Amino acid sequence: MESSSSAPQVITCKGAVAWGAGEALVMEEVEVSPPQPLEIRIKVVSTSICCSDLAAWKHHTIFPRIFGHEASGVVESVGQGVTEFKEGDHVLTVFIGECMSCKMCKSGKSTICQVLGLEKKGLMHSDQKTRFMVKGKPVYHYCAVSSFSEYTVVHSGCAVKISPHVPLEKVCLLSCGVAAGLGAAWNVADISKGSTVVIFGLGTVGLSVVQGAKLRGASRIIGVDNNPRKCENAKAFGITEVVDPNSCKEPIAQVIKGITDGGADFCFECVGDSDMLTNALESCCDGWGVTVALGVPRVKPKISAHYSLFLRGRTLKGSIFGGWKPKSDLPSLVEKYMNKEIQIDDYITHNLPFDEINKAFNLMAEGKCLRCVIHMPR
Amino acid sequence: MESSSSAPQVITCKGAVAWGAGEALVMEEVEVSPPQPLEIRIKVVSTSICCSDLAAWKHHTIFPRIFGHEASGVVESVGQGVTEFKEGDHVLTVFIGECMSCKMCKSGKSTICQVLGLEKKGLMHSDQKTRFMVKGKPVYHYCAVSSFSEYTVVHSGCAVKISPHVPLEKVCLLSCGVAAGLGAAWNVADISKGSTVVIFGLGTVGLSVVQGAKLRGASRIIGVDNNPRKCENAKAFGITEVVDPNSCKEPIAQVIKGITDGGADFCFECVGDSDMLTNALESCCDGWGVTVALGVPRVKPKISAHYSLFLRGRTLKGSIFGGWKPKSDLPSLVEKYMNKEIQIDDYITHNLPFDEINKAFNLMAEGKCLRCVIHMPR
Repeated sequence: MESSSSAPQVITCKGAVAWGAGEALVMEEVEVSPPQPLEIRIKVVSTSICCSDLAAWKHHTIFPRIFGHEASGVVESVGQGVTEFKEGDHVLTVFIGECMSCKMCKSGKSTICQVLGLEKKGLMHSDQKTRFMVKGKPVYHYCAVSSFSEYTVVHSGCAVKISPHVPLEKVCLLSCGVAAGLGAAWNVADISKGSTVVIFGLGTVGLSVVQGAKLRGASRIIGVDNNPRKCENAKAFGITEVVDPNSCKEPIAQVIKGITDGGADFCFECVGDSDMLTNALESCCDGWGVTVALGVPRVKPKISAHYSLFLRGRTLKGSIFGGWKPKSDLPSLVEKYMNKEIQIDDYITHNLPFDEINKAFNLMAEGKCLRCVIHMPR
Repeated sequence: MESSSSAPQVITCKGAVAWGAGEALVMEEVEVSPPQPLEIRIKVVSTSICCSDLAAWKHHTIFPRIFGHEASGVVESVGQGVTEFKEGDHVLTVFIGECMSCKMCKSGKSTICQVLGLEKKGLMHSDQKTRFMVKGKPVYHYCAVSSFSEYTVVHSGCAVKISPHVPLEKVCLLSCGVAAGLGAAWNVADISKGSTVVIFGLGTVGLSVVQGAKLRGASRIIGVDNNPRKCENAKAFGITEVVDPNSCKEPIAQVIKGITDGGADFCFECVGDSDMLTNALESCCDGWGVTVALGVPRVKPKISAHYSLFLRGRTLKGSIFGGWKPKSDLPSLVEKYMNKEIQIDDYITHNLPFDEINKAFNLMAEGKCLRCVIHMPR
């Protein structure tokens, strides 16, 4: 049985385990199972922290858990039936997979795969189990990725092969934040040249909408954020004006309407605040104003808006991953980066080794960074 | 001063005056002023009753008032500066005008004219006065049209010239209801061939969405209404299935999802109920479901919906007049009717002389008719 002797074995490696909500991550010896059928095991190279990691770490109840979903790596081994990947392939992980065969994937119109959609229980899609063990206990996954571990197992539908010439420590940002923002601007809103665009929330996702708007030739790109540091940073990305709602006497929608002759063509809510989404809708113009919801609200998940906003011609849309089909579309985004048609590097304000991941969490929590890339041991 | 001797004089005619909310209309001698600059005075030929008339009559506080906004007629005289119309021209009235020169009209993307938009105070757009007097008292207008009078004055931007060969007693329905429904299906939702469409509310507007969906080749057209008579009528218009929410054990969105493999491609709310709009959104499919709000809620004007409905790919849009630019687009709709490409006649379930307008109000209030056309004295 030659094949079984070369079959993947359990790997013991370092993983940053969250034992409870908001508790500092603990670097543990993690046993990572071999990939099961249609899964791959990845040696993580780079991973960054997204607001969703932070929010889930603070508010979720599923523990112990390994967070992380914005990542790049190299395939270490493949499970039964995997033909798309082989050992050594460079990959980006994706938190919403593409099975290529469900109604959604086949439609060509949606990124919400019915088989590999947003995983909320911390388990693998295929068998509803985990692939991590620490001290004999199963450790939950996050978003079907769990990249805060030297090795992780993901479904082969949740990874995208990329060229080995691409710098993994940069393009990991295309695994979530930067792609989400660019896609919201291009695929979901379809910003047209000369438009007036307002972005609520100037983190990485918001600033990626800014980049997308600039590349589409928007004439005014107005940022709204109450963090003066973020407002200052934003200018480098193409923001033409910033508004700090805390320094306004009138409600923010009134302010935006006042400076945009009745309202913006496009508004983007990147904060994850349902009241801010109402503000965004109200800041859009009558007739053709489009508001796109990107942020995920933690506190008040219901949005409320006056019916007449819609009757007067506004549209409200949403976007989880910018309308990108991961396998079909991400390689072309990576190519755009390599051709310098889009930029990623400026979103990386900090770099830290894996050992210092708690420091990266703090930077994010304090609003002091855009993206902090965590570099795994070589 | 030959011109002044032929200048239009006050006309005294019959008008159906609402003296108070929900009170039977009273046929009064109404003095109709000459048209002021850029206005025209119209001899109304046919007018029908729309749910908005009924709702405003029941709930508004502006009285005495002459309702009616879905109408056709013949120009009797024109005010200073009017070059588009002359005495004898056949016209449709429109409750949202098209000034052709504001930001919205010039955009080519909106029907919400900034100059001649929805008039809510019961006054003329130009001078904020009325053109009706009864017993020495000013009588308010409705929606800048007020067609429940033998003669009325409207802004020349609120009328559309049509061919004298067109039957005025039929095409008056294109002045609001039928056009609104067709436009919502074609311009706002842009229904594609083979789609699954759900229409909440099977009055004239809802059934016009049905007609629009059928003409676009929708494969399933599901109607939702708790009035069994309306459900039965609807089959003649192209409905393929009807669902009466009162006879369902599960919430209506669950029922719709169950029979449509996860949700419809398009939902239309034609009732004017904000909770029903939430149901419509929930009845749409993930990924690309589009919900269009057409109804105007009288009771609870705020809509509430879970943020994730949008993040999972739904779009919410609204429509007041089906995205039609009245002057630019209505003539082509009239032509479609004359070419038998669209049908209007089946929406006219009742015809009554002007004297019996209260009977028409009752038919509408009791849900016993689609459209009742009121025929003015010749």
